[in-house]
Amino acid sequence: MDEQFSASKLLYSVATKAHTEAHRDLLGQYVKDEKIATSQQLECALAFLKGHPEVASGDAAFEKDCGVGVTVMDEEIAAAVAKAFEEDKAAIEEDRYQYNFGSMLGRLTKTDHIKWANPTKVKAELDKQTLAVLGPKTEADAQAGKKKKEKAKPAAKTEKVKKPSAAEVAMQKEAEQMAKMTEAAKAAMSTFLYKPRLCRIKQLLDDASKGVFPDENQECVVAGWIRTTRDQRAMVFVELNDGSGPTGLQIVLEPTNCPDLEEFKKLGAGYGACIEVTGKVVKSPAAGQLVEMQGTGVKLLGPVGDGYPLAKTALPLEVLRSYPHLRVRTNVMACVMRIRNVSSFAIHKFFQERHFQYVHTPILTSNDCEGAGECFTVSTLMGQADPDYSQDFFGAKSMLTVSGQLNVETYAAGLTNVYTFGPTFRAENSNTTRHLAEFWMVEPEVWFIDQKGLMDLAEDFLKYCISHVLKECQADLLYLDQYHQRAEEERPKDDDSRRNEGSLVERLMQIVSQPFGRVTYTEAIEILKKELQEGKATFVESNLQWGMDMASEHERYLAEQVFKKPVIVTDYPAEIKSFYMKQSECGKTVAGMDILVPTIGEIIGGSVREDNFDKLVALAKSKGMTDKDVESLSWYTDLRKYGSAPHGGFGLGFERLLLLCTGMLNIRDVIPFPRYPGNISC
Amino acid sequence: MDEQFSASKLLYSVATKAHTEAHRDLLGQYVKDEKIATSQQLECALAFLKGHPEVASGDAAFEKDCGVGVTVMDEEIAAAVAKAFEEDKAAIEEDRYQYNFGSMLGRLTKTDHIKWANPTKVKAELDKQTLAVLGPKTEADAQAGKKKKEKAKPAAKTEKVKKPSAAEVAMQKEAEQMAKMTEAAKAAMSTFLYKPRLCRIKQLLDDASKGVFPDENQECVVAGWIRTTRDQRAMVFVELNDGSGPTGLQIVLEPTNCPDLEEFKKLGAGYGACIEVTGKVVKSPAAGQLVEMQGTGVKLLGPVGDGYPLAKTALPLEVLRSYPHLRVRTNVMACVMRIRNVSSFAIHKFFQERHFQYVHTPILTSNDCEGAGECFTVSTLMGQADPDYSQDFFGAKSMLTVSGQLNVETYAAGLTNVYTFGPTFRAENSNTTRHLAEFWMVEPEVWFIDQKGLMDLAEDFLKYCISHVLKECQADLLYLDQYHQRAEEERPKDDDSRRNEGSLVERLMQIVSQPFGRVTYTEAIEILKKELQEGKATFVESNLQWGMDMASEHERYLAEQVFKKPVIVTDYPAEIKSFYMKQSECGKTVAGMDILVPTIGEIIGGSVREDNFDKLVALAKSKGMTDKDVESLSWYTDLRKYGSAPHGGFGLGFERLLLLCTGMLNIRDVIPFPRYPGNISC
Repeated sequence: MDEQFSASKLLYSVATKAHTEAHRDLLGQYVKDEKIATSQQLECALAFLKGHPEVASGDAAFEKDCGVGVTVMDEEIAAAVAKAFEEDKAAIEEDRYQYNFGSMLGRLTKTDHIKWANPTKVKAELDKQTLAVLGPKTEADAQAGKKKKEKAKPAAKTEKVKKPSAAEVAMQKEAEQMAKMTEAAKAAMSTFLYKPRLCRIKQLLDDASKGVFPDENQECVVAGWIRTTRDQRAMVFVELNDGSGPTGLQIVLEPTNCPDLEEFKKLGAGYGACIEVTGKVVKSPAAGQLVEMQGTGVKLLGPVGDGYPLAKTALPLEVLRSYPHLRVRTNVMACVMRIRNVSSFAIHKFFQERHFQYVHTPILTSNDCEGAGECFTVSTLMGQADPDYSQDFFGAKSMLTVSGQLNVETYAAGLTNVYTFGPTFRAENSNTTRHLAEFWMVEPEVWFIDQKGLMDLAEDFLKYCISHVLKECQADLLYLDQYHQRAEEERPKDDDSRRNEGSLVERLMQIVSQPFGRVTYTEAIEILKKELQEGKATFVESNLQWGMDMASEHERYLAEQVFKKPVIVTDYPAEIKSFYMKQSECGKTVAGMDILVPTIGEIIGGSVREDNFDKLVALAKSKGMTDKDVESLSWYTDLRKYGSAPHGGFGLGFERLLLLCTGMLNIRDVIPFPRYPGNISC
Repeated sequence: MDEQFSASKLLYSVATKAHTEAHRDLLGQYVKDEKIATSQQLECALAFLKGHPEVASGDAAFEKDCGVGVTVMDEEIAAAVAKAFEEDKAAIEEDRYQYNFGSMLGRLTKTDHIKWANPTKVKAELDKQTLAVLGPKTEADAQAGKKKKEKAKPAAKTEKVKKPSAAEVAMQKEAEQMAKMTEAAKAAMSTFLYKPRLCRIKQLLDDASKGVFPDENQECVVAGWIRTTRDQRAMVFVELNDGSGPTGLQIVLEPTNCPDLEEFKKLGAGYGACIEVTGKVVKSPAAGQLVEMQGTGVKLLGPVGDGYPLAKTALPLEVLRSYPHLRVRTNVMACVMRIRNVSSFAIHKFFQERHFQYVHTPILTSNDCEGAGECFTVSTLMGQADPDYSQDFFGAKSMLTVSGQLNVETYAAGLTNVYTFGPTFRAENSNTTRHLAEFWMVEPEVWFIDQKGLMDLAEDFLKYCISHVLKECQADLLYLDQYHQRAEEERPKDDDSRRNEGSLVERLMQIVSQPFGRVTYTEAIEILKKELQEGKATFVESNLQWGMDMASEHERYLAEQVFKKPVIVTDYPAEIKSFYMKQSECGKTVAGMDILVPTIGEIIGGSVREDNFDKLVALAKSKGMTDKDVESLSWYTDLRKYGSAPHGGFGLGFERLLLLCTGMLNIRDVIPFPRYPGNISC
C-alpha cells in the first residue's frame, strides 16, 4: 500500500507541477515505470525540464540529472549519516534530543548521491544512529524538550532562530509520514480484521507447517465457533474453527494457566458456541497436529440457545438445505463456499491479466434476449388485471435478464475485449439437480476473434480457473474428496442417482493436464451412432440423427467414454442454435462451440457472431421473431451497421463450474441461497 | 500459467501417490511452498517417506534427500550438458539428429545435483548445444529420420532395441510438455486475443514510452475504429482507436508500401469504420507521438452505414445517453468504463488480499430487508387482479433485493470475514443525478470487529481503491481532467448545477494522502450550528437540531468546508437509523458510521450490529415491524441465538465511488446501461 501511496503522491505532483502536457506525460511515465520514485528526483526532473523543455524520454543528461537508475546502498546511507554525526558531534552531545535532527535529515537528503536514496531509509538510519549514540530518552531529555518548547515560542515570534528551509521541513515531514504510512500499512495487514493480535487459524496452521511459530512471549487471540470440547478433569480441550479452513485449532485450557476457566466451564459452552481465546501458540506434543494454543484467557461471546438445528453429527445435505443461513458453519459447505470465492477471483484474474474490461450488464431489461427461457416479469403494477406497462416504473414491460451477452457485445464493439460476470435468471419450472432460477454467468466477448481463437480462449480460461482452485484450495479439495468417498461408501446400493467417480483432485487434474478434444457436431453424431451400432453405448434417446439437439447423456458419453477428457464440439446445425450465431457458407451450420466435460456435460456454450446485418435479421425472422421483435433489437443489429467486424464470445454457467470443482452433485449446494420453484427462503 | 500448471501437476501426484494422509498433507505443503517443485524432487520425497514414515516438516535429512533449497545455476547445467556431449561425442557426430537425445536428457536429470534443476531448463540447454554442435537440421537429417522410423518399427516388435526406461521416457515427456506449455502460455499472453500478431494500441504506446519498439522486421496487426483520416495526396493518415486507452495510433498509408490503399480509398471509410491494418511500428518523426505505424496492408472490416449517431464533434453527455449501445465508442465514456473496470478489480483485490470470502447474496428475496426503500416485485402472475402469491413461482411474494447485508451477515457468522458485491434495486421515483433504480453495492461484513476497527477498515478500503485507480488509470484520469476543465469553461454562467471544482487528480490525491476526520454525530451537529450562527454557512435546511437526518448539503459542508477532506461521522440517533445497528448503553444512539467525502456527501454507511437478540427485536418492533415481520426475519435473528458475537460492516454505493473517481456529475454516466424511471433501453 505504501508503494502505491507514494506513486500516487508523485503523480499528483506531476499533474499539478508540470508546465506542459508533454512534460506531464513524460514525467507520469517515469513515475509509472518507477524510474522516478522520490520527490527529490521529481524536483530535479522539473528543474531540468524548465531549462530543456524539448527533452524526450530516455535522454541521458535528463536521466543523470534526476538520478534515474541510481541505487544507494544501505552502507552508503549509514556512512553518510555517521559522517554527519561526526561533523556536528559537539552540538549533538550537548543538545542531545533537542538537537535539530530534522535539519540534519534535510541536509542529508540534499547531499550528492545520498539525495537519491529513499528518504524513509535515511530517516530510519538517522533514528538508529541517534539511539546508538544517545541511548534511549531520559527523564532529563523529556524535561529539556518541554523547556525548549516553552522557550521556542517567543523565539519564533522574533523570527531570529535559524529555521530549516521550507523545503527541508517538507522533506522531513514527508519522510516521517512515509515511515508512518509504511508502519500503518504493515499493521493493517498483520493485525487481522483490524483487531489487535487476532489471528486466523488457517494462517497459524500454514505458518506452523512451514516451521514458523509465533514468538513464545507473544500472546495471540483466536475467535471462532466450538467444534468439540473434552473436559478431562485437569484440563479442557476445545477444537475451534473460525471458517478460514476445514481444520480447527486445538486449544488446551488448564486452571493453573487460565483463571477464567472455572467461570467458563459453568456456562457450559458446547458445539456452535462463539468464543474468544487468548493464549500462546506452541508446538503440539499430540500426534496429528503441529500446533496448539495454551489458553490464558477464555471468553464466551455467544452461547447456543435451544433448538440449534446443526447437530454435532453431520446432517445430510438435503437437511442442511433447510438452513441456508446456518449451513456454512459445517465443514462441507464452508469448503464449497471457499472454492466458490477462489473461483470467482480466478475468473477476474484471468480476464484482467489479459486486459479484458469487466462490464456490468443490466439485470433489468426490456428484451427477452435470445428466447433462452421463460422470464420473470418485474413490475410495480402487481394486482392489476390488465396492466398498462407504459404506466409501469420503466414505461415498458420489464424482465430479469436471461443473459448479458447481447448487452456486453455492444461494449466489445468499442473496447474490443470485455466480459460480464453477474446473476441471470430463468423462470423455468425445473426441479432438477442442475437448474436454478437465479444463477451466475460469466460471458466474455471479443471483437476481431475467429472460431479457433475462441476455442483457445475458452480452453485456456477453463484450465486457468481449475488450476487456480487446485493451487489455492488444497485443504478444501482434500476434505471434499474424503467427504465424497465417505458418502459413496454409505450410499445404498439401489440408489442410482448421479455418482462421484474416482478422486475429485484426479478429475480436475485430468482437465488441466491435456489438450481438450475438438470435434465437429457432424463428427460427434457419427461417433455416437457408431458406438450405438457396435453395442458399446446405450442411450435413452437412441434415435441419433443429424439435426438433433444432443441430450446430457450424449454429451457426457462423448466426454467420459469417447474422449475421456473435455471435448469442444463445433459447427452445430443452425436450426437448433440461436439467431446470432455466424452462419456457414451453405447456411446449414453455425460457428457455435460448446465445451463438454466429464460428469457435467455442457459447461461452456459460445459462438462466433453473425456480423452481417441482413443475414442476422433473416435468421432472426426464420426463428419466429416478428418485425416488431427485430425492431426492438435495433440497438443490437445496429452493431452490424456501424463499424462491425468478426467477433465472438461464450458463456459459462458459474455453478456448473463449481459442481465440477467441488464434486457436489446438486447445484443447490454450490450457491449460498438457492432459488428454485417453491423456494425463496432467507 | 505454466507455474500454476506444474504445481497442480505435482499436487495431483501427491494426492494419488502419498501413502498416508499425513504424508499427503506434508508433501502438499512442500509443493505449495515451492520447496518441492519438480517431479524428481517429489519422487525422492516419496521414496524417503517409505523408509521414514514419521518424518516431520523441516526434517533436515528429508529435505537434503529431496533437494529442498538446492539451486542449480545455469552455468552448472551448461557444464553438465557439455560434459555429456563430450562423453558421447563420436556417437553424436555419427548419428546426428538420430542420436537418442531423450535418453541423454533422462540420464542428465538423474545426475547428482543436476537432477534438482528445472527439467525445462536442462532440455533447453540440451537443444541449444545440439544446435551449436550439429547446426540446423539438413535435408539428409530429415531423410535419416524417416528411414530410422521405418527401421524402428520391426525393431520395436522384437523388443530388442535398448529403450530408455519408463521413468526416463516419462521424465522426457514431461520436460517436453512443460517446455511446450511455457511456449503456449507465453504465446497466449503475447498474442493478444488469440489472433496472431494482433497488438493493442495502448501496449504499443506504453512500450514506446519505455523505449521498446517491435523488431523492425516484424509486422504487427492493429484493429479498431477510425477516429480521423487525412488524405494528403501522397499519403493517407489514419488515427485508430481500439478502446485500450484514450490515445489512438497514427497510421501512415503510402501507395508504394501499401498495395491495398487505392482500393481502400475507394470505399471511403471514415469516422467510426472498423479496419484492420498490417504494418511496421516505428519511431514517429512527428511531434507529440512516439510511434506510428507504416501500413503495408489495410482492410475495411465494417463500414459505417447511414445514420450513425456519433458525429465527429463531441456530443453532450445528455445526448450520448440516448445511445447506451454506442456511447462507449467515445473517449469520455470509454475512460469512465475503464475506470469502472479498474475500480471493480481493486475492490476484489483489497478483500482477497485480506482473506475475505466473496459471497454472492441473492437478488431475489422475500424480505423487504431494512425497509430501505420501495421494492420491485418479481412475479410470474402479472395480470391477475388479486394474485395469490402462494401460487407464484417461489410460493411467496418475491422482490428484488435492496441490500445484501442481512444475507451476507449469515455467512460472516461462519466464515468470519466476507463481502458481497452485486446489483441492488430501489423502485423509488427519483429523477436525480444521484439515484438509479439498479446499481451495484459493495458490502463487507466482519465478525469480531468493533467500531474503531470498522472505521479503520472503511478508511483503508476507500484509500486502497482510489490509490489503485490513480496508479492504473493515469491516461484516463488525465483525459477526464481535461474534459471536465473544458466543460467548465464552456458552461453558461447562469448554469448553477453541480460543478467540478479543481483538478480531479488533485481531489483524489487529497483523499489518499491524509487521515480522514472522525467526529460524532452530536459534535457534527454542534459544528454545523456554530458555522450557521457565525454566518459562515447557509443551508436550505437551516433548522439544525439533534435528531435530524443530515441532508446532502450538511454532509458536503462538513467534508468540503469544515474538514476539507473525508470525515467519518459516528454515533447517530437510533431513531433515524436501521433496527440492526448496535445500541449504546443509554439507547439514544447507535454505533453507526458514515463516511462523507467532498463533492459527493455520504459514500459509505455502516455500523456495528446489534448482537443481542432481545434488543434487536425490541428496536425492530419500535420501528413499526409487526410480529409477523419479525417472524419472517427469524433466520436473521437466529444469528443472535446461536454463537453470536460483536460484528459489523458497511455498504459502499459503487456508482458513488465512480462519481468521485471520474469527476462525472451524473450517475447515469458511470454505469453501462442506466435504469431510472421511464428508462430501460437496451
